[in-house]
Amino acid sequence: MTGEHSRKLPGEGRRRVVVEAVRPELEGGRFPVKRVVGEPLAVRADVFGDGHDRVGGVLRYRKAGREGWEEEALTPLGNDRWEARFVPEEVGRYEYGVVAWADRFATWQEDVRKKAAAGQEVAVDLRMGAALVAAAASRARGTPDGKRLEDLSRELEGASDPAIAAALALGEELTRLATRWPDRSLATEYGRTLPLVVDPPLAGFSSWYEFFPRSCGEGPHGTLRDAERLLPEVARMGFDVVYLPPFHPIGESCRKGRNNSPRAEPGDPGSPWAVGSRRGGHRAVHPELGTLGDYEGFVAAAGKLGMQVALDLAFQCSPDHPYVSKHPAWFRWRPDGTLQHAENPPKKYEDIVPLDFETPEWGPLWEELLGVVLFWVERGVTVFRVDNPHTKPFAFWEWLIREVKGEHPEVVFLSEAFTRPTVMQRLAKVGFTQSYTYFTWRNTKAELTEYLTELTRTELREHFRPNFWPNTPDILPEYLQYGGRTAFAARLVLAATLSSNYGIYGPAFELCVAEAVPGKEEYLDSEKYEVKRWERDRPGSLAPLVGRVNRIRRENPALHSTWNLRFHEADNDNVLFYGKTSEDGSNALLIAVNLDPFQSQTCNVRVPLAELGIAPGRPYLMHDLLGEDRFLWQGEWNRLELDPRVLPARIFRVHSRLRREEDFDYFL
Amino acid sequence: MTGEHSRKLPGEGRRRVVVEAVRPELEGGRFPVKRVVGEPLAVRADVFGDGHDRVGGVLRYRKAGREGWEEEALTPLGNDRWEARFVPEEVGRYEYGVVAWADRFATWQEDVRKKAAAGQEVAVDLRMGAALVAAAASRARGTPDGKRLEDLSRELEGASDPAIAAALALGEELTRLATRWPDRSLATEYGRTLPLVVDPPLAGFSSWYEFFPRSCGEGPHGTLRDAERLLPEVARMGFDVVYLPPFHPIGESCRKGRNNSPRAEPGDPGSPWAVGSRRGGHRAVHPELGTLGDYEGFVAAAGKLGMQVALDLAFQCSPDHPYVSKHPAWFRWRPDGTLQHAENPPKKYEDIVPLDFETPEWGPLWEELLGVVLFWVERGVTVFRVDNPHTKPFAFWEWLIREVKGEHPEVVFLSEAFTRPTVMQRLAKVGFTQSYTYFTWRNTKAELTEYLTELTRTELREHFRPNFWPNTPDILPEYLQYGGRTAFAARLVLAATLSSNYGIYGPAFELCVAEAVPGKEEYLDSEKYEVKRWERDRPGSLAPLVGRVNRIRRENPALHSTWNLRFHEADNDNVLFYGKTSEDGSNALLIAVNLDPFQSQTCNVRVPLAELGIAPGRPYLMHDLLGEDRFLWQGEWNRLELDPRVLPARIFRVHSRLRREEDFDYFL
Repeated sequence: MTGEHSRKLPGEGRRRVVVEAVRPELEGGRFPVKRVVGEPLAVRADVFGDGHDRVGGVLRYRKAGREGWEEEALTPLGNDRWEARFVPEEVGRYEYGVVAWADRFATWQEDVRKKAAAGQEVAVDLRMGAALVAAAASRARGTPDGKRLEDLSRELEGASDPAIAAALALGEELTRLATRWPDRSLATEYGRTLPLVVDPPLAGFSSWYEFFPRSCGEGPHGTLRDAERLLPEVARMGFDVVYLPPFHPIGESCRKGRNNSPRAEPGDPGSPWAVGSRRGGHRAVHPELGTLGDYEGFVAAAGKLGMQVALDLAFQCSPDHPYVSKHPAWFRWRPDGTLQHAENPPKKYEDIVPLDFETPEWGPLWEELLGVVLFWVERGVTVFRVDNPHTKPFAFWEWLIREVKGEHPEVVFLSEAFTRPTVMQRLAKVGFTQSYTYFTWRNTKAELTEYLTELTRTELREHFRPNFWPNTPDILPEYLQYGGRTAFAARLVLAATLSSNYGIYGPAFELCVAEAVPGKEEYLDSEKYEVKRWERDRPGSLAPLVGRVNRIRRENPALHSTWNLRFHEADNDNVLFYGKTSEDGSNALLIAVNLDPFQSQTCNVRVPLAELGIAPGRPYLMHDLLGEDRFLWQGEWNRLELDPRVLPARIFRVHSRLRREEDFDYFL
Repeated sequence: MTGEHSRKLPGEGRRRVVVEAVRPELEGGRFPVKRVVGEPLAVRADVFGDGHDRVGGVLRYRKAGREGWEEEALTPLGNDRWEARFVPEEVGRYEYGVVAWADRFATWQEDVRKKAAAGQEVAVDLRMGAALVAAAASRARGTPDGKRLEDLSRELEGASDPAIAAALALGEELTRLATRWPDRSLATEYGRTLPLVVDPPLAGFSSWYEFFPRSCGEGPHGTLRDAERLLPEVARMGFDVVYLPPFHPIGESCRKGRNNSPRAEPGDPGSPWAVGSRRGGHRAVHPELGTLGDYEGFVAAAGKLGMQVALDLAFQCSPDHPYVSKHPAWFRWRPDGTLQHAENPPKKYEDIVPLDFETPEWGPLWEELLGVVLFWVERGVTVFRVDNPHTKPFAFWEWLIREVKGEHPEVVFLSEAFTRPTVMQRLAKVGFTQSYTYFTWRNTKAELTEYLTELTRTELREHFRPNFWPNTPDILPEYLQYGGRTAFAARLVLAATLSSNYGIYGPAFELCVAEAVPGKEEYLDSEKYEVKRWERDRPGSLAPLVGRVNRIRRENPALHSTWNLRFHEADNDNVLFYGKTSEDGSNALLIAVNLDPFQSQTCNVRVPLAELGIAPGRPYLMHDLLGEDRFLWQGEWNRLELDPRVLPARIFRVHSRLRREEDFDYFL
């Protein structure tokens, strides 16, 4: 060796095992992946060493901030891929990583096994093994394992009959004890500790109902108290989240009139999203709706019915918002001295002025907005539907959500962004608990299959939790405009069974309101700009169907997850056929939806017998929970008719085992 | 805002643009990607902001260790994906990253354009623009651009005719100048600086010829001087890398006899991979082969013929290696006091003892092995074929290769690992320049298509450079055993045209030696254990074909890359049809290989007319460079016959434009 080539060596060059390709991992650990309480996190990694040495390893994890690690042993999946899983039991942040090592004991055992099988001499090998076992004994010193390993080492060392010694070397007891005390002195830790956010169960399974409290009254303007009286009806429909549009004072300057007219007529109530007037801003209640006390009463009443109230976080202002005079630096001012209103040229939103997140005073602005969220959290709100989050900086959301969830890990944030995929996904990465999706515009079998496959079978599922909405106050999709009541029913079943989180904007939804601004996907006479009088008991209301669907959701654990979705074959492009099975396999559903709102469709569907554990020759019961029909099917392919005049969908619970003679009491 | 919620804010919360999904990126920048000198690196990233602001950005890069950055502007690919590229001109390490920002000027221009088109008032907007342009002018102060931007700002500010002002605002000059001086004060830097290793051209395009010098003589044992006399013949065959198995002293203890017999007979030369005897170790030359001076002469003679010499780096020892007595701690000793020889139970390799990389003295061991490499680098060796690198720690290779290439960036390391995918890929990640592959066992159309697609169309291509070997001294594949001379010819063409790096073990290859140990893929009477006398001039030698193939490789830039491979349709599963086109499009090849060594195959092949720029109705010339035949084809589908009794392959150069009357001198 030439002296001039004396280089810097690593601190320890003997860590021979590699840990790589750890999944899930979001941008190298920059962002957390997501689970809900009780939902397992399965972690996989490529683990291997040089040469033919056996390797061992663990997944380690802990609640963030705690000392020490919990560990689960990795098990091999083949091809150097390993897996371990754990079930987080608390809300909040966790961290996890992978540690692995060369397992000299297992390597030695394998060598002895092969040599013995080939009739080769193993006496010296057994002495080497005795040394390995003695080392394990010293690691286990002070425990019963240590004592026993010492004995086993001596037995190996002293065994005179090679056959007996070999049997001892490969025996179950030695394997178990030595595996429990591996030599981890040269273990490799995966280079990054990865974050996980664990959310409350509601984050993974929720049914949302959005409505305008001002349309709930008998007089010209409903109140929060009127809305409260409606809560039992919402609960009867089976929802668990009640979501109200902003209930703050509405601006008067540039207030929009009916149908988004640039000029309000006297008496026009304005858009609730034009937040703030001289009566207050984001911490105040619109006087015509009631008081802060009324709102607290509303939240409490919903809670008694098992429902949470979602607050609409619309971080924008009407020109009358108190912020404008108190914090002029938080807004953009034009050279002519006027306030820059919201616009997306050539469209203008004169009733709204955006906050300027590029202001040098961004710090106080962020603090104030965090203060708004915490103000409502302190008043019992744990669910926030965030309006247009994609028009505020990602860094702001990342900070705000982390601050809130640091103290209140149970809080849920739903991202209302209908924009480009990169942006919607980034919002999910920076911390939003749930996200609006493109479901609203996915109608055909090909569209739904492709989109749901992307949502559920790619890495997106690790951080992007879909919440499916067939309609919103902003969007009346063409499919609903043209498809009539059947279209609403089909979209309801799709939203509620494809995704474990879904919501509707009512009563427009259950009353099948379908009149749009011509050529657009906007409601004609939109509730955003006027008080409505809904005829809730109108014949033909889908409220009973909504109630039935939500009851089915609640009673069937298979529908409590989005990730267990599997598409199955149906030989008709108008019929979507798919299934969900609960984690423990006890609850299996097969769902068929006729996507054609106009005509009856028949088709053959292929039942995944093996997955469902159905023996090929045996009949099985298909119990349609929606129509309460029962069918006996057998074999893979079965015939189905879905008539939109009756019901465009069936939600079958599969009973794979029918009773037979041997189940009859007197059979034996 | 409640005082108790005053939290830590980020240092700067106004960096609104996101840079993510930068590719290529290997394990978050942990390992470098690879290019050769002159090969462009195209970098892509998702770049976007909140809201509807336009964004701008650059790819920045530099030679590692240099100050400052070179920059290339990102251009949009759609869907928030952006790209820029640069061409590295020097060997060595580079680093690169992405920087992006909200482009307020472009956003403003777009708004003005839309408002003007909608007939809206833009006077105040123009004044806002004037301020943006004035800011750009101040960034450009002291340059001619600065002066001109100042003028333009004043013109915008003062323009009285709105139409003229709008034209000025959207004009080419202002756009160009303002784009050159963007506001980068709130720019976002991608979180990681990513490494790139740039290798010499040989790393990307090389033809290797392996042979045993001891089989080159007239007497019982050839020498390096005998081998030197053979070099002109190797050069005539068109190779540029000459690779010799280890030429160090061969151990005598436990030396292997012919056909891997555990006992050598007197006169048996032993395996060259049993390195080291009392005559020296990895820095010495086997006395029967010659002297260190002879080796230096061999390297120099090869250099004069335009060939580099690859040294076989076999980091293992015979029991007689000087290391054993000098550094006993570098080996494993069994409890009975014997040296642990190499084994993969039940297989034993008694002539070899492995180095123990878990020795506490691993530091001096690493230093010594680095010293060995540098010893040979100092003697003119720049190419190393590394024997069984997967039996030494990855960390060791990462350190060694980085140390060597830090001072000698032109050095090439070829990884001879035929093992599991994770291991082979990790070796490429830690620094190996080229890698042996599974090509040796990929014979059918489906196998070749799938494997080459994986190698060339996935992220593997960023770090794993294949080197295709149809045979090696260790492997005589069944396809060659049974397929006869035609099989050798087909595999030669496949290796040499699918991959830009390939090699053969000769003369066994060109003489079509096909006798194997029964039931195995090993050569019978293997040259590893005996001196051979090759009848190089034997009729039927493929040497002329090898020479022709290598000349075609050299003359056709399309074959200088592996990454430009595209498979095309052929309606016969025995025919593989594929193409390669040079970066500038001037050199286009289409290659057809009959994979059935026994029968003539005809088929229709589909020519990718559009990709080749051939007008549908026009004829084109297919010039078979292998058989020197010429065909006039037209249209997409054409018929082809490949008769193994003539040649199992055709390498067509496509001449897409044939001369017509307008090209004739007198036409005009």
